[in-house]
Amino acid sequence: MNKEDFIIHAFLNEKNGDDGAIINQWCYSKDLFFENVHFKREWLSLEQIATKAMLVNISDAIVMNAEPKYALLGLALPNLSNEEIKILQKGFLKTAKKFGIKIIGGDTIYNDKIDISITIISKIRKKAIFRKGLKKGHLLAYTGNLGESLRGLEILQNGGKLNLNHRFIKPKLRADFFYEIAPFISCAMDISDGLSKDLSRLLVKNKCGIEWLKNLDDYTLYSGEEYEILFAFDEIQRFKIEQIAKKHRVKLNIFGKAMKGKYEFNGREHHF
Amino acid sequence: MNKEDFIIHAFLNEKNGDDGAIINQWCYSKDLFFENVHFKREWLSLEQIATKAMLVNISDAIVMNAEPKYALLGLALPNLSNEEIKILQKGFLKTAKKFGIKIIGGDTIYNDKIDISITIISKIRKKAIFRKGLKKGHLLAYTGNLGESLRGLEILQNGGKLNLNHRFIKPKLRADFFYEIAPFISCAMDISDGLSKDLSRLLVKNKCGIEWLKNLDDYTLYSGEEYEILFAFDEIQRFKIEQIAKKHRVKLNIFGKAMKGKYEFNGREHHF
Repeated sequence: MNKEDFIIHAFLNEKNGDDGAIINQWCYSKDLFFENVHFKREWLSLEQIATKAMLVNISDAIVMNAEPKYALLGLALPNLSNEEIKILQKGFLKTAKKFGIKIIGGDTIYNDKIDISITIISKIRKKAIFRKGLKKGHLLAYTGNLGESLRGLEILQNGGKLNLNHRFIKPKLRADFFYEIAPFISCAMDISDGLSKDLSRLLVKNKCGIEWLKNLDDYTLYSGEEYEILFAFDEIQRFKIEQIAKKHRVKLNIFGKAMKGKYEFNGREHHF
Repeated sequence: MNKEDFIIHAFLNEKNGDDGAIINQWCYSKDLFFENVHFKREWLSLEQIATKAMLVNISDAIVMNAEPKYALLGLALPNLSNEEIKILQKGFLKTAKKFGIKIIGGDTIYNDKIDISITIISKIRKKAIFRKGLKKGHLLAYTGNLGESLRGLEILQNGGKLNLNHRFIKPKLRADFFYEIAPFISCAMDISDGLSKDLSRLLVKNKCGIEWLKNLDDYTLYSGEEYEILFAFDEIQRFKIEQIAKKHRVKLNIFGKAMKGKYEFNGREHHF
């Protein structure tokens, strides 16, 4: 058991173990976005840091089939100038506005680096989607193209630069698509630690193995921070989901089928 | 304007500027508790770190007149052993249990130090108490004895040790007392940055000055992380509040009266 799994297990109760926790049709999620853990200062501008911190948190709400409404910001900041704080603020506010989120509070402290903690309070749309719900025979799918985030990370680690809209800088969330397929799927989670790792969590939770329908390369399997969506559905919903994907121009990759058995994660984890 | 005030101002809306934000009778609060900002590793055991991180967050809920119900934990941790994680966990779980809180989720990452971010979701009891509400003529009061936290900090900074129940290690919250006086007071906040600093926030927010009824020494004025409560009430409620304080054996210090005018904070802030 790795450390995160150990800690998750230590605090396990019926509410957690998903991207968000649901209470009375509200979803609560919290993700950390820390300098030298998730990003290096030279890789992202202050506005990009704030924007990505918001997006990775909003992603959790979306995959629970919830609409983000409010945010609390925990900001641990080094000695930034007022001008720099305004640029950081712009990233938070623009992203909040885009998703209809009101920033309702939080905490700010001095720190030796930029460490951001965000809590998103989101409203469930009809019914929540959980990681649990996968049944044997269900098709496993992910959205978009995986691998770009890891490729971007490698470019940055080698001193290169990325385009402003590169997935590593600004993840592309699939809210409209996901909200529309939600009634037809059995479970979902976002891909933050790499498809292989996140798939193993999904399969373990549902006590399933997998029959692979496609060969996936290492970039697809091990690229973290993609914020594409891993989900599953009964074969009977396939046509409907394909239609919705077409409508939203979202690439749909059906790569496996849940089976009796066990899937062991034995790849590398996403850490730099 | 100092940096925290600048940032608070940058994100200001009608919901924030209090210890918690209220939406539909729920209160949402978030405080950071970071190594080398709020504590040093040699000052607190892992259990004490977790306990204090919880208490400073629960304090925010209490002074809004809310009962804490749920918590999200953001844990950025260095490479701790499983044994150490269990000790940390004990601090979270014992404190959560004591206050009837369920830990519903969060996020865990590796980091170079122990940085904790907690979100508390609490239920308002009848009506929320805000920082706003002070009227000219209201009496200003604080609970307990201030200064102990700063004295403890000085002892630690000089290499000394503190008793396990010292306020700097384990703040004493006044939940039962506060819930009982809440219907009779006009405003409140916890004393986290020192009475002088927090009083200035309260007075500025309510556009009031102060007539001092007592001379307060520097330890009383400038000791942060006390988590005693600063509050105000109409003189007509004085007897009732004194009775409730007596019942709960809480020392009540009526030290000033809100007046027309302006209070300027010009002391030192609480940072080590």
